[in-house]
Amino acid sequence: MENENLKTEDKITLIVFSGDLDKLLAALNIAVGSTTLQKQVSLFFTFWGLNALRKTGKASKAKHILQKIFKLINKGGSNNLPLSKFHFAGGGTWAMKQVMKAVNMQSVEEMLKLAKSLGVKFIACSMTMDALGIAQEDMREDLIDEYAGVVTYLTEAEKSNINLFI
Amino acid sequence: MENENLKTEDKITLIVFSGDLDKLLAALNIAVGSTTLQKQVSLFFTFWGLNALRKTGKASKAKHILQKIFKLINKGGSNNLPLSKFHFAGGGTWAMKQVMKAVNMQSVEEMLKLAKSLGVKFIACSMTMDALGIAQEDMREDLIDEYAGVVTYLTEAEKSNINLFI
Amino acid sequence: MENENLKTEDKITLIVFSGDLDKLLAALNIAVGSTTLQKQVSLFFTFWGLNALRKTGKASKAKHILQKIFKLINKGGSNNLPLSKFHFAGGGTWAMKQVMKAVNMQSVEEMLKLAKSLGVKFIACSMTMDALGIAQEDMREDLIDEYAGVVTYLTEAEKSNINLFI
Repeated sequence: MENENLKTEDKITLIVFSGDLDKLLAALNIAVGSTTLQKQVSLFFTFWGLNALRKTGKASKAKHILQKIFKLINKGGSNNLPLSKFHFAGGGTWAMKQVMKAVNMQSVEEMLKLAKSLGVKFIACSMTMDALGIAQEDMREDLIDEYAGVVTYLTEAEKSNINLFI
Repeated sequence: MENENLKTEDKITLIVFSGDLDKLLAALNIAVGSTTLQKQVSLFFTFWGLNALRKTGKASKAKHILQKIFKLINKGGSNNLPLSKFHFAGGGTWAMKQVMKAVNMQSVEEMLKLAKSLGVKFIACSMTMDALGIAQEDMREDLIDEYAGVVTYLTEAEKSNINLFI
Repeated sequence: MENENLKTEDKITLIVFSGDLDKLLAALNIAVGSTTLQKQVSLFFTFWGLNALRKTGKASKAKHILQKIFKLINKGGSNNLPLSKFHFAGGGTWAMKQVMKAVNMQSVEEMLKLAKSLGVKFIACSMTMDALGIAQEDMREDLIDEYAGVVTYLTEAEKSNINLFI
């Protein structure tokens, strides 16, 4: 069953499920590296990954009481992301950020802006937003190109010769 | 080195390694979405992912004492899956499930049955089952199509134009 | 936009981001299984995944004080890897290793050597090494084929018909 859809392009599509600092850095490094090789890059942010695209400290529009509680503990903002390991109530993550500065590594915020300026496409998962009570006004409109669901993801991914779930 | 194997089909193969509620939901949403686009879908459940296909509360057939201990702490059943973040000894996971009900999102159990009814192929990793002392009678035969190992996975994946490790 | 790059080969490229025992075993099982099917296999170790390729107990060459602290808590060596779940300050991981021995499953160390002997290519991410203050002399030269960055990864991945992020 070969068809038009299966002509892959020089394209990479990443699902950014994780909201962890280290995984975000990995995803953004792959994205930026891909643009230097002239690849088209799409990032589909879903679940905790959406935290990187949320405004910092933005008040919740969640109606459901449990959505409100969830938004309190699940903080947004690209500077609030924890490490997947050694977070240590923030201490390990703070240490990692200091190390990154010391060796002139770029922060998640800098990498997000760099990726955007290089033409990386940012898609935010609308289904997760509905589930977690996150409104479009809670999101970073300077970064996001499109709000969409799984069918949009699949349409990007089926044309890509590199697909990853991060 | 191009050969017959490399003719990719309109097919998606996911390794479901994680047993976390949120990652299972992501995998099942991708699987169900893929069927609406007429894709063939195979899910290869391994390690903690097998918990979603285990019967709830089923007594262990594990012979080794440590396998028995491991089965006590590593609970099966699609309703017993923790969140990858904010599990909080069950409290965060409970809150998430309440939110999902409030916004009419389907549970893992509902998504498993929906995926099955739409023709998604469920493969359970036999090597992990041996290692963790999980017998076929501990597993949900209403869901599982096949018990198999890594070679079967690779044979599915090499024909797929979308491959993910979740 | 089809080009020479897009002729995929019978090749599999895995990013090994995780340093967890269970995920390492999954990656190495897929790698070894792939060689039995005559596939070329490249493993790109980055972030915590590098721990599996570090010498055990090797003193740090890190100059920055925070890099030194980080190396103390982020232990290297293929026998020091924790489980992603149920690590329980080492108890759960110890139990898992005992179970693996009891059922004659191979350890990470054995799987690394087996993969190496079967021609699997080991690439260590040089950017992460710089960031975490890990020097080449801290690394297992019996395993590593190449130190490289994201562009090398992408060049491997774009030719592969199976790509995973583990």
